[in-house]
Amino acid sequence: MSYCLSIKLDAGIVFASDSRTSAGVDNISSYSKMHTFVTTNDRIFILLGVGNLGTTQAVVNLLQRDLEQTNGSLNLNNINYMFDAAHYIGELSCRVQNMRCDVMAQSGANMEASFILGGQIAGHPHETYHIYPEGNYITSSPIHPFLQIGETKYGKPILDRIIKPDTNVNDAARCALVSLDSTMRSNLSVGPPLELAIVKKDTFKLERHIVCEVDSPFFVEVQNRWREGLVNAFNELPRFDWEE
Amino acid sequence: MSYCLSIKLDAGIVFASDSRTSAGVDNISSYSKMHTFVTTNDRIFILLGVGNLGTTQAVVNLLQRDLEQTNGSLNLNNINYMFDAAHYIGELSCRVQNMRCDVMAQSGANMEASFILGGQIAGHPHETYHIYPEGNYITSSPIHPFLQIGETKYGKPILDRIIKPDTNVNDAARCALVSLDSTMRSNLSVGPPLELAIVKKDTFKLERHIVCEVDSPFFVEVQNRWREGLVNAFNELPRFDWEE
Repeated sequence: MSYCLSIKLDAGIVFASDSRTSAGVDNISSYSKMHTFVTTNDRIFILLGVGNLGTTQAVVNLLQRDLEQTNGSLNLNNINYMFDAAHYIGELSCRVQNMRCDVMAQSGANMEASFILGGQIAGHPHETYHIYPEGNYITSSPIHPFLQIGETKYGKPILDRIIKPDTNVNDAARCALVSLDSTMRSNLSVGPPLELAIVKKDTFKLERHIVCEVDSPFFVEVQNRWREGLVNAFNELPRFDWEE
Repeated sequence: MSYCLSIKLDAGIVFASDSRTSAGVDNISSYSKMHTFVTTNDRIFILLGVGNLGTTQAVVNLLQRDLEQTNGSLNLNNINYMFDAAHYIGELSCRVQNMRCDVMAQSGANMEASFILGGQIAGHPHETYHIYPEGNYITSSPIHPFLQIGETKYGKPILDRIIKPDTNVNDAARCALVSLDSTMRSNLSVGPPLELAIVKKDTFKLERHIVCEVDSPFFVEVQNRWREGLVNAFNELPRFDWEE
């Protein structure tokens, strides 16, 4: 497992991902799960992927190769709508998963991958999509501004309580970091470094991108203050009527 | 799904459960998932059950019926160890699940149930057990004092941060309430009323038992203060270096 999320706000989009990959507990490694495509100045795409690492890497490779084709075939530079991009990535994912399906079925390996695609194409609003292993996809909504893939449950309560469409991008990025931190503490399959990216609407560029190592002073400070804040909040809870 | 947990502390045991049952989204109901057995003054057992409601109810019925037998057969009154009680309940659960396994296999229905058993028998320490659908069981440990069944992930981070073996029973009960509240907000399959029970060690009686309806003033106050406390904790987090 892994954990990635996007938060679509009025002001832009926040992306966050962990970096742990595992093929069993004796084969743990770190790979970035955040892939940025900023090739022309009228569009930006950020892709987060979890699941089979072979599938997610192959999809990214195919997206890159398609960008280098000069025969006018579909790629991220000539695509017209964000939902078309989601559809295109879903198709690539299914194509990769089906490539060796006979061998895979024999081995019992799971080739599935899930993606979050976010970004903007000039003339259209900024959007985020959750692309399922089956290639279909959904977008976010004002009452559900965030999308999650992978180990989604541990870090959902804090998002449910904090995130609104008018939350500013920096607060949303902080909330994503807390959501990832809570998940990482409760589940070994999610691990550092954590990546955060911010894209402001109508800018078509990566506003911010940071990589938080587990011992980075900023991340340690976030963890310490959050722990202290939670303990303080807990200590302020009302007493039962049988307590003095 | 549902969500129940136990917290084994130096001073005693806290139990908590939601009450939602569902056989599909069009068949939602409320049943207590907490069953107390205090029949003699040298022992107490509390059983929490999630999964197939037919299975959990049948297991409770069989436990009660066995208590009424006068032929000296095994029951909760004559059992000598908590782990024997866990084994006995695991056996009853497997027996119930297997009763109609041929019909169930045809219908595709899932008869599985998971249980938490906690309590104490005089002369032995207080203990908690997680009994799996397969009938096997594990107990808690000082570095993992809580056991969870059902929808366990949403409410785990707060337990991970607050619960230690020397936490007092009232704080642990408050933490269980917050853990249930967080789960209930993020997952429709967990719902009110919430039940809390406290058993202090070496007392062999139910010290406290409360049922929190969703609109009970105490529970509303816990929810409000926790939300405020979380927002305050969030607002105290450090700023990114690019923020003023």
